[in-house]
Amino acid sequence: MTAEQRTEAAGGPCRRIRLTVAYDGTAYNGWQYQPNGVTIEETLNRALSLLTGEKTEVIGASRTDAGVHARCNYAVFDTRMRMDASKFAYALNQRLPEDIRVRRSEEVALDWHPRRCRSIKTYEYLIYNDEFPDPLNRLYAQFVYSHPDVGKMQQAAAYLVGEHDFKSFCSIHTQAESTVRTVTALTVEREGSLIRIRISGNGFLYNMVRIIVGTLLEAGNGKYPPERVAKILEARDRKAAGPTAPARGLTLVGYRFLQEEPR
Amino acid sequence: MTAEQRTEAAGGPCRRIRLTVAYDGTAYNGWQYQPNGVTIEETLNRALSLLTGEKTEVIGASRTDAGVHARCNYAVFDTRMRMDASKFAYALNQRLPEDIRVRRSEEVALDWHPRRCRSIKTYEYLIYNDEFPDPLNRLYAQFVYSHPDVGKMQQAAAYLVGEHDFKSFCSIHTQAESTVRTVTALTVEREGSLIRIRISGNGFLYNMVRIIVGTLLEAGNGKYPPERVAKILEARDRKAAGPTAPARGLTLVGYRFLQEEPR
Repeated sequence: MTAEQRTEAAGGPCRRIRLTVAYDGTAYNGWQYQPNGVTIEETLNRALSLLTGEKTEVIGASRTDAGVHARCNYAVFDTRMRMDASKFAYALNQRLPEDIRVRRSEEVALDWHPRRCRSIKTYEYLIYNDEFPDPLNRLYAQFVYSHPDVGKMQQAAAYLVGEHDFKSFCSIHTQAESTVRTVTALTVEREGSLIRIRISGNGFLYNMVRIIVGTLLEAGNGKYPPERVAKILEARDRKAAGPTAPARGLTLVGYRFLQEEPR
Repeated sequence: MTAEQRTEAAGGPCRRIRLTVAYDGTAYNGWQYQPNGVTIEETLNRALSLLTGEKTEVIGASRTDAGVHARCNYAVFDTRMRMDASKFAYALNQRLPEDIRVRRSEEVALDWHPRRCRSIKTYEYLIYNDEFPDPLNRLYAQFVYSHPDVGKMQQAAAYLVGEHDFKSFCSIHTQAESTVRTVTALTVEREGSLIRIRISGNGFLYNMVRIIVGTLLEAGNGKYPPERVAKILEARDRKAAGPTAPARGLTLVGYRFLQEEPR
């Protein structure tokens, strides 16, 4: 697009565009802008500015950690560029590195904010459980040599479903005011050498999914009985729970907005 | 291991060790030593020399192309190092980058040569067929935007099973004396957005699997009817077949030695 075309295209009314974004988090220092390291947010902003000629800043839905992946995250931005809303996906993908793809672009109300909507997010955590790591899934699964008992992991998981104070499952670096959240579903399934953990809820604290995975693995490895998870919740103390599982196994796989109004 | 331990360990009889090797080929210029670019072979040799203190050179089974992956390739090397044959896998993995893993190590006869055995190799080619690429499988699948007809791909594939002269499906840069090979199985299956092509045979010419995939896709996209594949075989001319599909979708997934004697 030439500078002339861009000036012409930029003369439209201000619109808010919502992007559905997938990315391989391996090479990024997480979603949110950081002074050190490249982030998803700034890479999207750069591609948008290249496209629109405006100084564009996205607002992200889930600000995923360094190394975490997404099949379905959301971001919005405002633009005066005249272009079919659905075309932004194609135009941005031409300006993005291949580890970030915009899967959909659509117009939303100017006051729609992805973090002020009630939503259900679903994360998937993959564990590769074999004698040796598999080089072909090393970036997307945590390698585990021990043979955890998936039945025990399922029993431990059952204690976490529902509304609880998840303070024990939250990094001490959190800035959240309340540590009460609702886990609507938490499943653990073995498929050959893969153990697939899926967790859905209305919001997750800092490192919450990875601390839950680390705790389920300790129960699966017999370090403590599944019932211990009830006591870990009660403790409201990060030190009571298991270790934080590595980021590479974690992918944000689903994001459903329940209503399009502020909460 | 100290220099003293290494000297002591190196005093054993000469043995031949066979390695089962898996790798992500993304970062490598193929298996075989090249003057430009890092290869799987030289990376294995470097790890072996670090471990044994000997100047070690592996003999590979399948010399895969740049960017092609493997779940199951083989290599042998000779050593005087005293160590349980099964322990080489663990010791080598500590000295290899994480995109190459030795899955098994075992002693074989001193004259056993992986390319002088009759064998059946199985390759898998993954196509990701959707509106936008998926960043999480971009290194292991070819992205295809068109919607190929898998039924037509299956019809086209049927012409290739059996013993044929595959000269049309072979890079013009081949050094093979005969271009006759036997394809023992060739299947095409759709699983959601993935199209999985599996091909087994007693040997494959240079780029043969990737040219077969490129040809099946042309039949699937209706560029010519599946019956054309019979004529392409007859032509014995590389220009008659479809394009060479990208390396990243290809993985050597199985390797079965039929007898442990020279052919």
